Amino acid sequence: MAGEIRVIPVEGMPEVQNGDDIPALLLEACTGPAELEAGDVLVVTQKIVSKAEGRVVQLEDIVASPLALALSEGTHRDPRHTEAVLQESARIVRNDRGTIISETRHGFICANAGVDASNIPGGSGTVALLPLDSDESARRIRRRVAEAKGLDVAVIISDTFGRPWREGATNVAIGVAGMHALADYRGTPDAYGEMLYTTMIAVADELACAAELVTGKTLGVPVAIVRGYRYPLGDSGSQALVRPAARDLFR
Amino acid sequence: MAGEIRVIPVEGMPEVQNGDDIPALLLEACTGPAELEAGDVLVVTQKIVSKAEGRVVQLEDIVASPLALALSEGTHRDPRHTEAVLQESARIVRNDRGTIISETRHGFICANAGVDASNIPGGSGTVALLPLDSDESARRIRRRVAEAKGLDVAVIISDTFGRPWREGATNVAIGVAGMHALADYRGTPDAYGEMLYTTMIAVADELACAAELVTGKTLGVPVAIVRGYRYPLGDSGSQALVRPAARDLFR
Repeated sequence: MAGEIRVIPVEGMPEVQNGDDIPALLLEACTGPAELEAGDVLVVTQKIVSKAEGRVVQLEDIVASPLALALSEGTHRDPRHTEAVLQESARIVRNDRGTIISETRHGFICANAGVDASNIPGGSGTVALLPLDSDESARRIRRRVAEAKGLDVAVIISDTFGRPWREGATNVAIGVAGMHALADYRGTPDAYGEMLYTTMIAVADELACAAELVTGKTLGVPVAIVRGYRYPLGDSGSQALVRPAARDLFR
Repeated sequence: MAGEIRVIPVEGMPEVQNGDDIPALLLEACTGPAELEAGDVLVVTQKIVSKAEGRVVQLEDIVASPLALALSEGTHRDPRHTEAVLQESARIVRNDRGTIISETRHGFICANAGVDASNIPGGSGTVALLPLDSDESARRIRRRVAEAKGLDVAVIISDTFGRPWREGATNVAIGVAGMHALADYRGTPDAYGEMLYTTMIAVADELACAAELVTGKTLGVPVAIVRGYRYPLGDSGSQALVRPAARDLFR
């Protein structure tokens, strides 16, 4: 029997700076209704992780290459911002109509290699890059919660990605610790006893989506707790969410 | 300030048959913790809507075309199942490695045009098709809740779609009534007062994801209520989620 799930905003996170101890700030902010419990999923938006890990770059420190200059023509993007995108890209998947879709070092495919100028102080003069190892960022938070509170929680680092075919972006998991990112129903009978085959649900992405409903884009609430969800056990990291090229029809 | 969101499973929906009155069954099942409140988002999985609307086909009533026979070779799919996929497709987007990605009559791009054999009685001898007009299916439920209870609720019909690049499927909205499917932050200042541009969030899809965490695939819980989310006002239908071909790099 399915139980109710709660999605709880974590209020009162301070402004995060380079070098800040995200786990310590989180543990301090998780009070009252956001007091952590075993089995919670702590969903942390990427931007504060990037800030704390020093993954913020001043455009004035970047020199745009000729390619970056060419790709920025006719777009709103500063060529130095484009240069940051190129430097964060392992592969350019599409470059058309002013948009750069690239594969990141983690294997994620997204617009601008996840390089983004929103919700960072300094406005258009600064850009945030994805964490170098977002699974390790998640594991670090999970470990610290276990040490400080003795609680077993899952941690997701989330970011906002667009997708082909459908308008609007949704949140996805770019870092996962303490759970399996996929619920695997292969070989499980459905409600009529028939075998479901090839049904894997990206529950880590669905958890990121649920959390986005309370963290939003403009609310200044960078963390949410999803409580009451019995997540699949394991420790797949976010790499379980990356489809191997050989099984992807849209590379 | 963001408040807490609750995702509440609606237990006790009976087995749905062709011709059943889904709104009446829903109103009956929504009791106790699932008693409806104004502002709720009622998320109804596609399969029960298709069943009630007679969108279930017996394979024995289908004759496979030569194309369906050819496309089924080397796959697990019954050629008559493939024929149903072809008949539900407005366009084949990709056909490779046994997979058919097609565009439906609604403009959705998904595997097998949404034709699916899981969670219907009769097992592999029957397939379910998407509702002919899933927005109208959603509007009908919304109207009946307003008539019976005097409550203004939003309604989403959800289905499970795969996506390029990422492993695992997630739930999406294929029918939307009583809300705008997208939260539009264009021209809204972010937490630092900078303007967010080109940021639209597909909140109807995120709501479908949140609901999937309680409806699952094998739980026999086909409906969930998302409570406490202040959804964007409007009545865009699901068509707002369909990216026009001219703005899509992956057709």
